[in-house]
Amino acid sequence: MDFDGFFKAELDAVREEGRYRVFTEIERHRGRFPHATRYVGDETSAVTVWCSNDYLGMGQHPVVIEAMHRVLDECGAGAGGTRNISGTNHHHVLLEAELADLHNKEAALLFTSGYVSNWAGLGTLAAKIPGCVVFSDALNHASMIEGIRHSRAPYKVWAHNDPADLDRLLSEFGPEVPKLVAFESVYSMDGDIAPIAEILDVCEKHGAMSYIDEVHAVGLYGARGGGVAEREGLMDRITVIEGTLGKAFGVMGGYIAASADLVDFVRTFASGFIFSTALPPAVAAGACASIAHLKASSRERELQQDRVATVRRKLDMLGIPHLPNPSHIIPVMVGDAKKAKMISDWLMDNHGIYVQPINYPTVPRGTERLRITPSPVHTDGDINRLIDALSDIWSQCELARGSIAA
Amino acid sequence: MDFDGFFKAELDAVREEGRYRVFTEIERHRGRFPHATRYVGDETSAVTVWCSNDYLGMGQHPVVIEAMHRVLDECGAGAGGTRNISGTNHHHVLLEAELADLHNKEAALLFTSGYVSNWAGLGTLAAKIPGCVVFSDALNHASMIEGIRHSRAPYKVWAHNDPADLDRLLSEFGPEVPKLVAFESVYSMDGDIAPIAEILDVCEKHGAMSYIDEVHAVGLYGARGGGVAEREGLMDRITVIEGTLGKAFGVMGGYIAASADLVDFVRTFASGFIFSTALPPAVAAGACASIAHLKASSRERELQQDRVATVRRKLDMLGIPHLPNPSHIIPVMVGDAKKAKMISDWLMDNHGIYVQPINYPTVPRGTERLRITPSPVHTDGDINRLIDALSDIWSQCELARGSIAA
Repeated sequence: MDFDGFFKAELDAVREEGRYRVFTEIERHRGRFPHATRYVGDETSAVTVWCSNDYLGMGQHPVVIEAMHRVLDECGAGAGGTRNISGTNHHHVLLEAELADLHNKEAALLFTSGYVSNWAGLGTLAAKIPGCVVFSDALNHASMIEGIRHSRAPYKVWAHNDPADLDRLLSEFGPEVPKLVAFESVYSMDGDIAPIAEILDVCEKHGAMSYIDEVHAVGLYGARGGGVAEREGLMDRITVIEGTLGKAFGVMGGYIAASADLVDFVRTFASGFIFSTALPPAVAAGACASIAHLKASSRERELQQDRVATVRRKLDMLGIPHLPNPSHIIPVMVGDAKKAKMISDWLMDNHGIYVQPINYPTVPRGTERLRITPSPVHTDGDINRLIDALSDIWSQCELARGSIAA
Repeated sequence: MDFDGFFKAELDAVREEGRYRVFTEIERHRGRFPHATRYVGDETSAVTVWCSNDYLGMGQHPVVIEAMHRVLDECGAGAGGTRNISGTNHHHVLLEAELADLHNKEAALLFTSGYVSNWAGLGTLAAKIPGCVVFSDALNHASMIEGIRHSRAPYKVWAHNDPADLDRLLSEFGPEVPKLVAFESVYSMDGDIAPIAEILDVCEKHGAMSYIDEVHAVGLYGARGGGVAEREGLMDRITVIEGTLGKAFGVMGGYIAASADLVDFVRTFASGFIFSTALPPAVAAGACASIAHLKASSRERELQQDRVATVRRKLDMLGIPHLPNPSHIIPVMVGDAKKAKMISDWLMDNHGIYVQPINYPTVPRGTERLRITPSPVHTDGDINRLIDALSDIWSQCELARGSIAA
C-alpha cells in the first residue's frame, strides 16, 4: 500500500471540506496577555487573543509564576518517573490534597491532562466494575466518549441535558446493574450548563454513580472556584468530580476528586495513570498556587463575568448572532466551515484579532462558529476593537444579523 | 450496588497479593540529584534514588533549568489552549523542528506524554487506515497495547524480538492488506534491545509500516542521542519513531517523528492530540534545550555507560543475579512480589536507598524485580553504598546468588 499517498488523499478531502487546520503560531507574553506575537515563518505581528482557555489569565499571575520558578530551582525540571517508580514528588501530594479540599472530597488523583483524566478515570471505572452500564450525555467531550468506548462497557446516550431521558434509560436496567452517569457542567462549545440537581435526583433514584466533568467551570464558578457544583451546593452528592489545571488555573494537567476508595481504585488500575511520567513538580506547584489563590479571591471571577456581559451586550446592540447561555463562553454562530475560517482570517489579517474558527469534529458540521472567551485581562479598548471589527466584517459580507432564541 | 465496598474488596485482593502500591513521596533537589528527601507524613529522611528514568540527570542540567526559567518569564505558565485553539506556542514549533532533525525525519508532533503519543499515534494509524492489521511485539508497552486495542483494528502478537515469527505472521496476509509493525528498541523492564535491522528487513519484504518506540533510548544511544536506530544507522528505514521528553531528556511529553504527510494525518485525526491542552511553553523550551545539548555532547552518555558497567561488575562479584542485557537498565531479579517489596523497604529504611520494587502489571507475576538505573550523577560512593547494602540483605535473607544466562 502507498501509505503516504493515502495520507495525502485523506488530507486533501479535509482541505476540500474547508476544515483543514492550520495552527496559528503565537508567543504569549507574560504580563501582557491577551496580547501576543503571531509567527508566520519568520514574520511576526501583534495579536490580541480572544479564544484562549486561560479564562482568568492565571497563566501569567505572579503567584503562579513565582511558585513555578521556586520549585524549578528546588526540584529541577521533570519528575523523573511514573508516580510509582520514583515520580511521586512532594508537590504532587500537596496538589492532590489541595484538589480534594477544593471539591470537599476525601481524595484526588492527578493525571497528565484533562483528556487523560476522563479517558482513564471514566474508562477504568466502566471497565473494571463488573456489568457496569454507562449513561453518557449526548454532547459529552471526546475524552469521555473515548474512555467509554475504550472500556468496552455497554453504554446508552441520553438526550443532552435531559434528566427525563436519563431517567427513562436508567429505568431499562434493574437495581442490580451497576450504573455510571457521565456528564459535564459547562459544555465547552455551546456554553450551556447542565441541570445538575435534577440529574443527581435521577442518579440517586436509580442508585447510579455520577461523574461530572467541570473542566470549563473549575476556578470560574462557586465561592472558592470549585465549579458549578460548588455554586449550587451539590458537590457532596456527586460521586466523581473531574477537572483540569490547564484552563482557568492556567497551567496543565487533569484530575479526579472522589472518595478515598474510588480514587485508590483508579490509582491502582488505570493504565493511563500507572504508565505515565508524572507532571513536573514545578507544574504541580504552579497549579497548586493558582487553586489556592482562586479559593481566596473572587475578584478574577467577578471581572470575568463583567467582561463577558460587556461583550454580549455589545454584540446584541449590533445584532451579531451568538448563542445565549449562562456561562462565560460566547459562541458567535456562522454555520459554515469555509465562512468561519474566512472571517477568522480577516480578523487576524486586518485587525490582529485572533479568534479561532471551530469546526468539525469539535462541533457538528453546519454549526461552525467563532468561540469568544473574554477574560479579566481584556480591557475596554480590547473589547471595542473586537466589536468594531466584527461589525465591519458582518456588514462587508452581509452576514445575517439577529438574535438566537435561548 | 455498594460501589465503595466493591472498590475496597478489589483493593484488598491486590494487598493480599502483595502488590498494593504505596507511592514513595520524595522531593528531588536540583543540583543534588540522585540525592533527595523522602516524606512519610511530616517526617523526612535523606535518600539516594536508584530507580529514576531521569537517566542522565538532565532534569537538573543548567541549560534545561535556564531555558525553563527564561520561557516561564517570557510566555507565562500554561499554553492556554489546545494546539488548534490558541495553544500553539512558538516553542512548540521550535521543539517539533528539533525533534524532526534529531531523527532525520520531515516532521514531528508533540503529545502531552509518551503514553499518549503511543496510544494516539498508533491508535490513529491503526483505526484510520482501512483494513489495517497491526503486528505487535509480545512485550510492547501498555500504551501501545491500549492504542491498538482502542483502534479496533485486527492485530497479531509476534514472539518477542523474533523477526522469523513476525515474518510468519505477516505472510498470512496478502500484499493488498495494509500492515503496521509495532515494537520497541530498548524494553524497559528487561533492558533487552530489539534486532531492529532484521525486523526492518521483514517489514520491507512485506511492505509493512514500521513503528518503533524509543522512549528508553532517545538521548542515550546514537552519536546525537537519536536512539538505537540512530546508532545502527537505521532511522531512515523506519516509518515512525516515537519518543519521550520525560526520561533521558528530563522534562515531560511525548512525540512521533515521521514523514510530513503521516504527521499531518495524525495531527488531523488523533482525538488524544486534538482535544488536549498543549504542553506549557517552558516545558517545551526545557525539552528543546535538553535535546540540543545531548545532540552536541556525548559526555553524559559515556559517563552513564561507565556507571552502568561499574554497577554490573560489582553485582557480578557478589553473585547478585541480574538480567544480562546490552542496555543501561539493570534488573535485579527477585521473582516474588512480597519479597521484592521487603527488600526495597529494607534498603530504604536501613540505608536510605530507593529502588522501587517492580511488580504486576508492569512485569509478569513471578518475575518481580528491583530495576536499577545508574546515571552519570551516581558517584563511586553512591555505588559502593548500594552494593554493600544489597550484599548485606542478600546474605541476611539467604537470597539466591549466581548469574543469569543471557
